[in-house]
Amino acid sequence: MSLAPWRSYLARALQKNRSQPHSRYFQLATVQGDGYPANRTVVFRGFVEDGNQLKIITDVRSEKIIQIHHQARGEICWYFTVTREQFRLAGELTLVDYNHPDPQLQAARYSTWEQISDNARSQFTWANPGEPKSMNTKYFPISDIDRNKPSDNFCLLLLDPVRVDHLQLRGDPQNRCLYILDNSGIWNTTEVNP
Amino acid sequence: MSLAPWRSYLARALQKNRSQPHSRYFQLATVQGDGYPANRTVVFRGFVEDGNQLKIITDVRSEKIIQIHHQARGEICWYFTVTREQFRLAGELTLVDYNHPDPQLQAARYSTWEQISDNARSQFTWANPGEPKSMNTKYFPISDIDRNKPSDNFCLLLLDPVRVDHLQLRGDPQNRCLYILDNSGIWNTTEVNP
Repeated sequence: MSLAPWRSYLARALQKNRSQPHSRYFQLATVQGDGYPANRTVVFRGFVEDGNQLKIITDVRSEKIIQIHHQARGEICWYFTVTREQFRLAGELTLVDYNHPDPQLQAARYSTWEQISDNARSQFTWANPGEPKSMNTKYFPISDIDRNKPSDNFCLLLLDPVRVDHLQLRGDPQNRCLYILDNSGIWNTTEVNP
Repeated sequence: MSLAPWRSYLARALQKNRSQPHSRYFQLATVQGDGYPANRTVVFRGFVEDGNQLKIITDVRSEKIIQIHHQARGEICWYFTVTREQFRLAGELTLVDYNHPDPQLQAARYSTWEQISDNARSQFTWANPGEPKSMNTKYFPISDIDRNKPSDNFCLLLLDPVRVDHLQLRGDPQNRCLYILDNSGIWNTTEVNP
């Protein structure tokens, strides 16, 4: 698969904003079972090898799992504070849990687990997220976590963009470009009014 | 109306992050007519007087208008980069356009128009957003815009939170608190696992 035309602009934004650790955070919107929107900050974990899918990690106990099973569609909003530009990336979501049958995706799950920090790995052993905090809550010691075998709670989440909206606030007027993937797998690029 | 219990934490975050202009930006998720999520960065314009509603501004020609007419529900995700904390605010959205009959909300629309910058005001006179850029596109000179009378394209957008999820990444483990508004207008506060 060839790189999508918006990839070079995103790579440039990541490069120019690299002084800010938060430039690798973005907001992922999904839809709840009741039809209401949900929105949270997640961390960009790079692209799937040879593809345009963005990697995110999540806990199988997270609320977004149910939302994605209900409807596997997401929109990322990624604002870069140094260069003042925004990417909105909409597309299909794929959950890769411990049970996922695809060996390539399972390998990506394993390698992502190896790449994250001890601190990030330890969070998958914490008490059930969203439940009332209890004095009895135990936290697993970090040294006991196997770097080579992902926690069963550890889930890789992929977003495969089909529509990308790139807005650059610098400029008068601002610059905005739409990238839309058609049915034959071709990206169509249109400069639009901001 | 009394201030909601999460207001003091949000005020503290705004204060502690005030060195960063982007600390007044957040991401607003809505749902499209086709049931897919949408997500974009918008600017916080303060609270409605004597209330907990957050003010946003938008253009009546923006795609989010149709989405909000379809379903008036939104979730804000607001990440503060200095203090490393996130507020997720879910609630009902109210559009206050030039035609809105409520005199108080219309007054809020007028005063918000007066408070924004000349540059922000000028954007409401730009060519139709999202349409292909044309060489013929004209941009209105800023000096001609009336500060006392909002453009008909100018819309005030309010989000009235009913659920607030406050996560502080600092701390081991992290601190997370849920605020839920019940039917009698009381905010219930629960500390939960992150």
